[in-house]
Amino acid sequence: MPNNALLLDGTKVAESIKETLKERIQALGEKGIVPCLATVLVGSDPSSATYVRMKGNACRRLGIGSRRVVLPENTTTEELVETIRELNEDPAVHGILLQHPVPASIDEREAFEAISIEKDVDGVTTLGYARTAFGLADFPSCTPAAILAIMKHYRIEAEGKHAVVIGRSPILGKPVSAMLLNENATVTTCHSRTRGLPDLVRLADIVVAAVGRPRFVQGDWLKPGAVVLDAGYNPGNVGDVDYEACLGKASAITPVPAGVGPVTIATLLKHTVEAAEKYGNR
Amino acid sequence: MPNNALLLDGTKVAESIKETLKERIQALGEKGIVPCLATVLVGSDPSSATYVRMKGNACRRLGIGSRRVVLPENTTTEELVETIRELNEDPAVHGILLQHPVPASIDEREAFEAISIEKDVDGVTTLGYARTAFGLADFPSCTPAAILAIMKHYRIEAEGKHAVVIGRSPILGKPVSAMLLNENATVTTCHSRTRGLPDLVRLADIVVAAVGRPRFVQGDWLKPGAVVLDAGYNPGNVGDVDYEACLGKASAITPVPAGVGPVTIATLLKHTVEAAEKYGNR
Repeated sequence: MPNNALLLDGTKVAESIKETLKERIQALGEKGIVPCLATVLVGSDPSSATYVRMKGNACRRLGIGSRRVVLPENTTTEELVETIRELNEDPAVHGILLQHPVPASIDEREAFEAISIEKDVDGVTTLGYARTAFGLADFPSCTPAAILAIMKHYRIEAEGKHAVVIGRSPILGKPVSAMLLNENATVTTCHSRTRGLPDLVRLADIVVAAVGRPRFVQGDWLKPGAVVLDAGYNPGNVGDVDYEACLGKASAITPVPAGVGPVTIATLLKHTVEAAEKYGNR
Repeated sequence: MPNNALLLDGTKVAESIKETLKERIQALGEKGIVPCLATVLVGSDPSSATYVRMKGNACRRLGIGSRRVVLPENTTTEELVETIRELNEDPAVHGILLQHPVPASIDEREAFEAISIEKDVDGVTTLGYARTAFGLADFPSCTPAAILAIMKHYRIEAEGKHAVVIGRSPILGKPVSAMLLNENATVTTCHSRTRGLPDLVRLADIVVAAVGRPRFVQGDWLKPGAVVLDAGYNPGNVGDVDYEACLGKASAITPVPAGVGPVTIATLLKHTVEAAEKYGNR
């Protein structure tokens, strides 16, 4: 009985998050505070430029301010860090997003670390990660937080479930593993050196694909009834999951596009509003 | 053919670590630096007092200085934080150990956070944890680092292996999961809400028991040939693993006592020496 999976509609989840932000933004406005996200783009990678533009547009539509900083390809780490420090000190900026990836000549970790924890709305600093892992974070990384928000919206419980996360990057695989663990899931983190990946995925009640390889997760890797959350976004609007093949096997699945992506952006906006609420213009 | 497992002799590993420290301590001495560990004990729990005394004695035997601070049971969080700040600012102190657990009236996390990252030789701060998870830490938590040191000493490779960690505490289960992941193991983190724990442990090439329950891990939970690392230390010198039952099933196993425990102390000494080498008297 290959019944089609429940579609986890990211657009709907994103809209419901943004809906809750509207009156909070209005209340801030009455106090003379316009939440503002600064985006920093280094170089001229076209898809990075597109992402940054999408985020700026999303801010604008909701009445969140945005400040766009574009730096040339040959920017040094020191120059980028200095730019971030200026944004840290700017009282009208509540959140800072450094678009990933930066050109290879820059020490990305050093640049991320320069973002002050109060403005790290994208959840990229090591301290932000640790606070996420210990359940103390104001602003966990946006994509992991989006995955948890989708689960919450659709009342998918993590407690006692076995979650298999494929990927271990500092802003995706590691924090989503930590967040699922804090929700009382049993968590297995897999990666490129994992042996027997399909058999491990077959154990999962919840599969998170965060590997950056198009249509990597196969339908026959799934336990019937698994929940599939696809954080991948590869060229051609393709996720990390073979969506068609998984549709008849999963009990619920995020599509790509219109799955995790829009919720990630809504989460970034939410964090920016929360930063403005928490820290004001200082 | 129930062949007995290789005994992973923690005393031997600890001695070999301490052996490497001797000439480093001497070299520091020639520069007028005596590495010094400050231990902070709050209240009068007898086993905590014993642990602190053991650590102080271990320092003394090796020529590492120790400073013993004992605070009364009714110390406030603010007083404890103030004590830690004074130790942070004391140029003759290179490492600070706050003995866990502190009395329930104290905010232990806040106290841990007060330890400056340069002196966090026990690896208890959130920033220290994050740096461990990202493979950047100077001083990962001592027990996880001890487990990795035992594996290294006995040439037990983690890469590509499936490690099952039972426990998710901030200074044991979480960091040892992170460190094994960074060694390219596939890591499953289990805990009190995990369902079907025995079946998960049966998948493991490497089992880390960090649960704090005497003889919890049973012999029939093991895959034949698994490596068993027992970080438990329960009343009566009993580990978290049913040692006798696992001995005929595992390929290698740490005893309790004389397993992970002595290596944890040797790691603490090593970190103190490294802190003195790195930061000197400042």
